This record gives sequence, structure tokens and C-alpha cells, in this order.
Amino acid sequence: MFMNKGRLEAFSDGVFAIIITIMVLELHAPEGASLEELKPLLPKLISYLLSFVYIAIYWNNHHHVFQVVKHVNGRVLWSNILLLFCLSLVPFVTAWMGENHFSSLPVALYGIILLMCALSYPVLIWSLIRLHGKDSLLAASIGKGTKGKISVAIYSTGILVSWFNSWISFVLYCMVAIIWFIPDRRIEKRIRNND
Amino acid sequence: MFMNKGRLEAFSDGVFAIIITIMVLELHAPEGASLEELKPLLPKLISYLLSFVYIAIYWNNHHHVFQVVKHVNGRVLWSNILLLFCLSLVPFVTAWMGENHFSSLPVALYGIILLMCALSYPVLIWSLIRLHGKDSLLAASIGKGTKGKISVAIYSTGILVSWFNSWISFVLYCMVAIIWFIPDRRIEKRIRNND
Amino acid sequence: MFMNKGRLEAFSDGVFAIIITIMVLELHAPEGASLEELKPLLPKLISYLLSFVYIAIYWNNHHHVFQVVKHVNGRVLWSNILLLFCLSLVPFVTAWMGENHFSSLPVALYGIILLMCALSYPVLIWSLIRLHGKDSLLAASIGKGTKGKISVAIYSTGILVSWFNSWISFVLYCMVAIIWFIPDRRIEKRIRNND
Amino acid sequence: MFMNKGRLEAFSDGVFAIIITIMVLELHAPEGASLEELKPLLPKLISYLLSFVYIAIYWNNHHHVFQVVKHVNGRVLWSNILLLFCLSLVPFVTAWMGENHFSSLPVALYGIILLMCALSYPVLIWSLIRLHGKDSLLAASIGKGTKGKISVAIYSTGILVSWFNSWISFVLYCMVAIIWFIPDRRIEKRIRNND
Repeated sequence: MFMNKGRLEAFSDGVFAIIITIMVLELHAPEGASLEELKPLLPKLISYLLSFVYIAIYWNNHHHVFQVVKHVNGRVLWSNILLLFCLSLVPFVTAWMGENHFSSLPVALYGIILLMCALSYPVLIWSLIRLHGKDSLLAASIGKGTKGKISVAIYSTGILVSWFNSWISFVLYCMVAIIWFIPDRRIEKRIRNND
Repeated sequence: MFMNKGRLEAFSDGVFAIIITIMVLELHAPEGASLEELKPLLPKLISYLLSFVYIAIYWNNHHHVFQVVKHVNGRVLWSNILLLFCLSLVPFVTAWMGENHFSSLPVALYGIILLMCALSYPVLIWSLIRLHGKDSLLAASIGKGTKGKISVAIYSTGILVSWFNSWISFVLYCMVAIIWFIPDRRIEKRIRNND
Repeated sequence: MFMNKGRLEAFSDGVFAIIITIMVLELHAPEGASLEELKPLLPKLISYLLSFVYIAIYWNNHHHVFQVVKHVNGRVLWSNILLLFCLSLVPFVTAWMGENHFSSLPVALYGIILLMCALSYPVLIWSLIRLHGKDSLLAASIGKGTKGKISVAIYSTGILVSWFNSWISFVLYCMVAIIWFIPDRRIEKRIRNND
Repeated sequence: MFMNKGRLEAFSDGVFAIIITIMVLELHAPEGASLEELKPLLPKLISYLLSFVYIAIYWNNHHHVFQVVKHVNGRVLWSNILLLFCLSLVPFVTAWMGENHFSSLPVALYGIILLMCALSYPVLIWSLIRLHGKDSLLAASIGKGTKGKISVAIYSTGILVSWFNSWISFVLYCMVAIIWFIPDRRIEKRIRNND
């Protein structure tokens, strides 16, 4: 008998749900009722939208991976917490980037946090594979992590480029989101074939 | 074997619970302890009440539909996230409408967000039906979506009317809430008959 | 087949958890680091403690009752939402009462909200019994609701008394909390005997 | 038949998830976009990191213990709520400690709250053992609580030392976190052997 995954999923779902929702608290209702006063919120809204998509992507992949997870141990719990910690910093950098209209430093820091998330995700995967074995359905469903490596490369480029033109960085971050938008079909296929 | 719906429900319940509860944070406790200082909160309270009912309606219908859902896929996850994103903007427009005592633009924007929610809900339904098939219990329980079409028409009217008299818009939004207040008896019946 | 209670519990647990936790956000960290600056927080802390206990009591009783609930319907969902709405106003009155050092009006309003919660709870119970039948384990476990009636009487007294001396009201509210502190042993017993 | 543990876990997971996530709200995005304006956030970030680890440790141990819990009663519910109450004060002292750059009084109060958590945890364990019996798998998995006693001693030292040098206290608090970082292998082992 091993520890079951139920509560790790429940706790993670809670944290994901809170992170994705508290970001909207940064959209403070302006005092006046005119269209003029809505305009300064536009960069914040764009910033929120991108982060919403990112958190949703992480939740989506987390969801897909844990469909084939059988059980967990202490190492899995802690690598999961590491991922959640990195994700928990997203609301802060989202707010900072939105408030400063995508200027260089906030955009760079936003990229750094995304990079930290992208680096902590494979740690979780690795600790799951270590527990389930290299021949497990889990290991077979994961693949080589090519997407992850490309993401890391694009984030790094985005961070560097931000000093010259932060909008290019922003476009790069959006690109990664698009790459990940499609959840890992491999897992869906494996689950279906494994029937 | 398909992906089960458990975590989609748990994550959605989390987001619903947070959206419905953080709106109350806009009711800032006034500094003084007199009745005078409570009065300005009244429009905020009305605004909160309407939005609370709306989020509860969406949760209610989400709950009813997922009672007959068997499994989910990537498309369902993402159309669910689209709905949650639209709903996550409700607290912002609720606060803006309440703070500006139901003046034209905030009331119009409130209607636009409600409209977005009303348009994204059938996307979720459609992706669920596409997965379960047109002969499924799910498809049979849903009906033609007449209520949804009426809602879209009333919201659109409300948004246009807000430029002349925003209180008429407010009454129209309340009307839609009343229409939806009664949860979909069809699903309850189908579940019972399907015993 | 009836609708199962799982998601109602999950959604309610989410709302309970958020209500009980966001109240702590009112304890703003003071700017300075001296003991002097902590003192003004004392009434807020007392206010928070009482409300924490109250929300916990409601969660506790909700938990006990739903242990013997078999299924739910639309009426149950909505009477549950009514209860959650009343409870969601507790953080606001808690903050107001704490900030104004338990002066008359905030203490009266606090009592009014508690009264609303106390009146909406039996509505939920009633709709559950209506669904399960008068001969159900649920109906047998509930009892006559004597505690509830006493609470309503004490709250009403507390609200009236607050105009003369709000501390008496506060003591009365604490008394009700103590009455309810012990969860309904009837349900625990019934569950055990029903083995 | 006894009351099952499902909702206690769900409610606790909700509260844990909210506590761990709302602390990040204290990291307010600075107005400007320069590195200068990020610097004052560093103590807040360190403070957040320590508290995040602490809440994660408590969640982790809660998770491990409840793996071997069979059922709950009123006493368990209330001792669990006591623990959650103590933990709910962590965000407040985290913010205060971070804002005042780890000066004496905030660091002492931070230690006092940690001490309260450390003292309320064995109350929960004790009420669980009382329900399950001294010969239960639960009792066998818990051990003598040596770690807990050491923690209480170090916290107490940290609180006293803070008047002279609050950084020593901070190091002591970190030490306790490190001691607890490794989750209770005993329970993992017992669960595995009990197969």
C-alpha cells in the first residue's frame, strides 16, 4: 500500500484556483464611471489574461499527468510544493508588469518567474517517474520533454531581449503559451489505449 | 478508459467558491460606526447580491450538467477554463457598478461580461456533447438552449438601454437571473428516470 | 438515481474555507514594530476569534448533517446557497465591529447577520427533510431544533440590548457560540448505532 | 459506522491552500519599474518563503497522519479547527515581520505563533489516538513526538533570544523548518508494510 494521490490533487487544485482568481483583485475598479478611466486598466487586463492562460496550462498538464499517477511519496509532495511556490509568485509579477505597462525590468522578472516554473515542473515529473519506475504507464506517457526544453530556451531569450525591447519578450512569452495550449495528447491517447 | 471528471469539478468548485466570496471584500467596513456611513454601501450590497445569485446560478447549472457527464478531454477542460475566465471578471464589474451607483457605462460593462459568460457556457456544453455523442444521456438532458438564447437577447437589450436608463438594464439583468433561478429540472428528471 | 451530494459539499467547503480565512486579512500588519502599535489590533483579534468560532460551528454542523444526507435536489442547492450568502456577510460585520471597538451599531449589525444565518440554517434542514422524508435517518437525527430557537431568542435580545450596552450583546453572542460549540451528538450517535 | 474523514480533509486542504496563497498578496507590486524599488521587498520575500515552507510542512504532516486515520468525531473536528486557527495567524505575523525587516518584536511574535501551532498539533494527534485506540496503526505510526518537543524548545529559545538579536531567532526558526522538512518516514513505512 502506498499513499494515495487524492489530497495532493485537492490541495493543488485549491492553490491553482486561488492563484488564478486572486490575480483579478489587481483590476481595481476605477473611481469614475467614464471610459477614460478604464483605459489604464488595459495593460493590466492583458497581463492578467496571459497569466490566467499560463496558470490554466499548468493546471491542465498537472491534471493530465496525475491521471496516470498511481500513488505519491514525500519527495513527490515536496517537488509539487516547489512548483506551487513558483506559481504563487506569478500574481505578483503579473501585477508589476501590468502596472508598469510592460517596461523592461518587470517583463524580465515575469520571464524569470515563468522560467522558474518551467524548471520546477520537470522536477515534479522526475520524482513521479522515480517512484513509478521507467516502465510505468506514467513514464511512457511523458515523452522526452522537448516542449519543456524549447520553452526554457524561449523564456531565456525573452528575459535577455527585454532590455532592448520588452514587447518582443511579451510576444515570446505568448508563443510559449500557444505551444503549451494544446494539452499533452500523448497522455489522453495512452489513457484511451490502456482501456 | 477516458479521463475522469473529478478534478475538473474540484478545480471549478474552487474557482466558483473564490469568485463568489472575494466579491464581499469590496464591502469595505466604513471608518465610523454611524448609520450614515453604512448608506453608501447599499448600492455595493445590491450589486454584490445580484452577482452572488449569478455565480450561484452558473455553479448550479455546472453542477447539474456534470452530474450526467461521464468523462472529459482537453477540449472540455479548455472550454471550461474559458467560462471560468469570463466569470472571474464578474467581481471587477460588480465593484465598478456598485461604486458608481449603477451609472451607464459600468452597467453596460456589467452586461457585457454577463453576455460573455452566457456565450461561453454553450461552448462548454457543445464540447461536452461532442465528446459524449448526440445520443447520450447528456445530450438528451440539455434541450435546445432556449433559455440561453433569451438571456443573450435580454443582455444585449440591457447593454443598449443602459445609455438611456441604466436602471432598466439592471431590472433586465435581474429578470434573466429570475429566469435561471430555477435549475434545469430536465436533468433532475432524467437522472431520476434513468435509475 | 438522485443527484449526489459530493459537489455541494466540495463547493460549501470551499466557501467556508475562504470565509474563515479572508477575515484574517483585516488584521493589517501595523507599520511600526512596537507593542504600542499592536494594541489597536486587539479588538479586531477578538472580533476575528468570535467569527472564526462561528464559521467553524456552522461548518461543523453542516458536516454533521451531510453525513446522513443521501442526495440533493435544486431546492437543497438553493437553500444551501442562501446560508452561504448570509455567512459571506460575516467577514464584513466582523471587520466593522472590530474597527469600531464594539460600539453599538456595528454590534447590532453583527447580531443581525448572525440572526440571518441562524434563520437560514433551518431552511436548509427543512428542504433536506422534505427530500428525505420524515421517517429518514436524517429527520431522526435532527431533533426539534431547540438550540436554534434559543439562539434566535438570544440574538434578538443581543441586537436590542446593543443600544444600551454593546458589551452585554457581545457576551450574549459568545454564549450562543458556547451553546453550539458541542457538535450535535445526536447525529454521531445515530451514525454509530446505525452501523 | 463512524463519521468519515473526507470533508475534514477537504475543508483543511481549502484552508491550507488559502493561507499559503494569500500571504503572497503582501508582496505589493511597487509603483516604479526600477530595481531600486524591488529591494525593499526582499525581507518580505524571505519572510514569505519561510512561512510558505512552514505551512507546507504542516500540510505535509497533516496529509501523512490522515492517511492512517479511519474516522473522525467532534473532538477531532475541533482540535483540527484549533490548529487551523493558529495557522491562520501566520500570514499576519509574516507580513509584520517582513515589513519591519525582522526587528525584535515581530520576530518574537512570529515565534509565538509558530509555538502555538506546534502546541496545537499534538492536541489533534492526541484526539485522533484517543478515538482510534493505543493499538491502532495510527498510534504506532506517530512515535514519541520527539521532533515536536525539540521544536517547542527551539521556538522558545528563539522568542527569548529575539530581544538581543532577532537574526539568531530567524536562524533558529529556519532550523526547525529543516528538521521537519523531511516528512515522517515512519508513516510512509507503516503504510507500505501494512500492505
